[in-house]
Amino acid sequence: MKNITKNLAALHVEVEQVKDYIGQTVKMHGIVYKIREMSGFAFVILKTKRTLLQCVYSQDFSSFELSTLKENMSVVITGEVISDERSRTGIEVRLVAFESLSVAAEETPVVINNKEVATSLDTLLDYRPITLRNAKERAIFQIQAGICRGLRIFLDANRFTEIHSPKIVFSGAEGGANIFKLDYFGREAYLTQSPQFYKQIMVGVFERVYEIAPVFRAEKHDTSRHINEYTSVDFEMGFIESFYEIMQLETKMLSETFTFLREHYAEEISLLKADIPAITEIPAVSFNEAKELIATNYKRKITDFEDFEPEEEKLLSDLIKKQTGSDFVFVTHYKSSKRPFYAMDTQQNPEVTESFDLLFRGMEITTGGQRIHDYHEQVSKMLARGMNVDAFESYLMAHKYGLPPHGGLGLGLERLTAKLLNYQNVRYATMFPRDINRLEP
Amino acid sequence: MKNITKNLAALHVEVEQVKDYIGQTVKMHGIVYKIREMSGFAFVILKTKRTLLQCVYSQDFSSFELSTLKENMSVVITGEVISDERSRTGIEVRLVAFESLSVAAEETPVVINNKEVATSLDTLLDYRPITLRNAKERAIFQIQAGICRGLRIFLDANRFTEIHSPKIVFSGAEGGANIFKLDYFGREAYLTQSPQFYKQIMVGVFERVYEIAPVFRAEKHDTSRHINEYTSVDFEMGFIESFYEIMQLETKMLSETFTFLREHYAEEISLLKADIPAITEIPAVSFNEAKELIATNYKRKITDFEDFEPEEEKLLSDLIKKQTGSDFVFVTHYKSSKRPFYAMDTQQNPEVTESFDLLFRGMEITTGGQRIHDYHEQVSKMLARGMNVDAFESYLMAHKYGLPPHGGLGLGLERLTAKLLNYQNVRYATMFPRDINRLEP
Repeated sequence: MKNITKNLAALHVEVEQVKDYIGQTVKMHGIVYKIREMSGFAFVILKTKRTLLQCVYSQDFSSFELSTLKENMSVVITGEVISDERSRTGIEVRLVAFESLSVAAEETPVVINNKEVATSLDTLLDYRPITLRNAKERAIFQIQAGICRGLRIFLDANRFTEIHSPKIVFSGAEGGANIFKLDYFGREAYLTQSPQFYKQIMVGVFERVYEIAPVFRAEKHDTSRHINEYTSVDFEMGFIESFYEIMQLETKMLSETFTFLREHYAEEISLLKADIPAITEIPAVSFNEAKELIATNYKRKITDFEDFEPEEEKLLSDLIKKQTGSDFVFVTHYKSSKRPFYAMDTQQNPEVTESFDLLFRGMEITTGGQRIHDYHEQVSKMLARGMNVDAFESYLMAHKYGLPPHGGLGLGLERLTAKLLNYQNVRYATMFPRDINRLEP
Repeated sequence: MKNITKNLAALHVEVEQVKDYIGQTVKMHGIVYKIREMSGFAFVILKTKRTLLQCVYSQDFSSFELSTLKENMSVVITGEVISDERSRTGIEVRLVAFESLSVAAEETPVVINNKEVATSLDTLLDYRPITLRNAKERAIFQIQAGICRGLRIFLDANRFTEIHSPKIVFSGAEGGANIFKLDYFGREAYLTQSPQFYKQIMVGVFERVYEIAPVFRAEKHDTSRHINEYTSVDFEMGFIESFYEIMQLETKMLSETFTFLREHYAEEISLLKADIPAITEIPAVSFNEAKELIATNYKRKITDFEDFEPEEEKLLSDLIKKQTGSDFVFVTHYKSSKRPFYAMDTQQNPEVTESFDLLFRGMEITTGGQRIHDYHEQVSKMLARGMNVDAFESYLMAHKYGLPPHGGLGLGLERLTAKLLNYQNVRYATMFPRDINRLEP
């Protein structure tokens, strides 16, 4: 121990408790975030778990030389807690002494302790281990942790059971070429694109299940909306009467999660100036209606009648926002040809499916719908698509031996976080993104 | 709709609410688990989310033919709720009518509705999508979900922030040959063996972090303790004074999680006859002491002075149980040569590390310890091991620009579940296990 000259006996308190110690001298730990020298004194900002704590150095009460304290040093400070309305936390700590626990070997190559990390996205990501230390950057991921907490509280309360499905799989759920291949002890295996098969299987076990876990897509697109590994929030529920129940549950889930955020993450929301929408109801339009709305309102010629262009999702979101005030819009009844083999077709019109996407501020964040539960119906649809039914034998066990009517959804955690915080590129809301050009850090 | 002849207006209730409807006629949904014909009546067991509900069929009050109701049929039943002390749930439902929502295409190839699925482990796993429907089998995974809930409640309350680290990585945390390789757009990548690097990096951001996520080990062992993909509960915390703080926190985490299980999973605990230990303190012995204890008490010649044989872990656990009553024992100060490059060596004896394992009923379930936080010290240790320091540049950014003293642990969720429920093979507590011979279902 060094540098401690008095108050050795001061109580070591956590930053969350510090308000209870106004007028007292305490010890607290943290990382020196910023030292700002003023005339005759200095502000020393201490980074703690979630809060930046304002400390003051002055020769009037500090028993050390300011030059011995360094940015990025891990310290235990001894200081007097003062009430101060001007500081964000309502308190200020007068530094008496400090103990250094760990020092940085070098100065950071990018400035990380200003309001923003003023650099390109690439540099931000190249130096992720340290740029994440910036107060605003880390607040993004504190919010993301809060979203997961809120989602789980909702799902647990609604009697969903959490599952852990394998990520190394023997066949892809979505099919297509965008799947990572793996040598599994001499056998070809894949990285899961979605827990779809497993969550359907588990509907037969627990009726309602969820999983928040990584999924992998080997897509070669380099866009602001795609990353090759992301966190998928999946739930699946049995005994539904229609896919509208899934949409209703998602509406409630998002609404309650946002309420949870407002209650428990006010500091981060304020720091990020985040606009967390209040959700009561989310408007829904069918895919065909949506295409018409876009054509009519934007005098735009529709060329693709099977799917949306990203630009169209933006235009539709803008229109719905203008017309209804909603930041969200459900689009329903996507073309059967564009949905996977397990999607249930609409009885009155088998060209479309009992499915939906959820758009949030111009970006698709959720895909969901009702699935086929009848074994023969599922096999027929697979055969009609020319699929090798035998390769899906273990998945189809669920159907063969009885599955209730069911459906569910997959929600991209990073996309939700990005749009909630108004980032245009999903990478800003991905802790360590993986894309076609990036495998590090 | 078919088969409903009266009581169409009955309220549709969830099984959790059914006790509030004694004496009333309600609708409930579920899957017909078992039909047991008695003389003059039949028991119909309805499988709901977590409960098996006892229903009774009798021509005295049922308005349908029993033969029209089938096992594995998804149904909405209409029935009168009767208080019945003899049934597990305290109630019984007199079936009036039912509506079939979905029927099984075939009878199950293994009997899944007896007390146990009486079959080999291999068959149990081959038919996992349906054997999991057995009440006891699914209770294992309801308990596992409960463990995760308990762990998260504890970690959130102790101000750990949840992180999502990438599973496709550019280098392995543990090193060695047991790593799955992947072609990542023409570049060699790996599947993560542990979130170790990322959680250390994130200590510099949030001070305390955790993650419950899959990890992958390409080990070729085919043992009862190894699977190639498992769920790792990881936490890492800054500003520790020694690794004993990690052990203390794990003790408290397990103790509170088990209390949570007893409170919220009593039905599953009873069904599985699980012995959930009450934890107050966990004894700790050093690796060398442990070896001596085994040698002395079992008159066993020690041949490996660097590591434990699995048999030795069992013997040590038995001994500690006999001597102290504890189902758990910490073993500390493992040899430096057997621990990864980031493990902190003990100052007084650099041959050993500030590390520990936790044994539970004879099996290692946790590995943890203090890590090196100083950049120069970390680089020196890597160079001494002949490692290519440049390959770890982004990981070492955390150290270079300042990291507090820190440590953490990794806990195998499936191993914890297996030992808690007294299964010798970890596969019993793995939903869909992956091993050298098994990639399906």
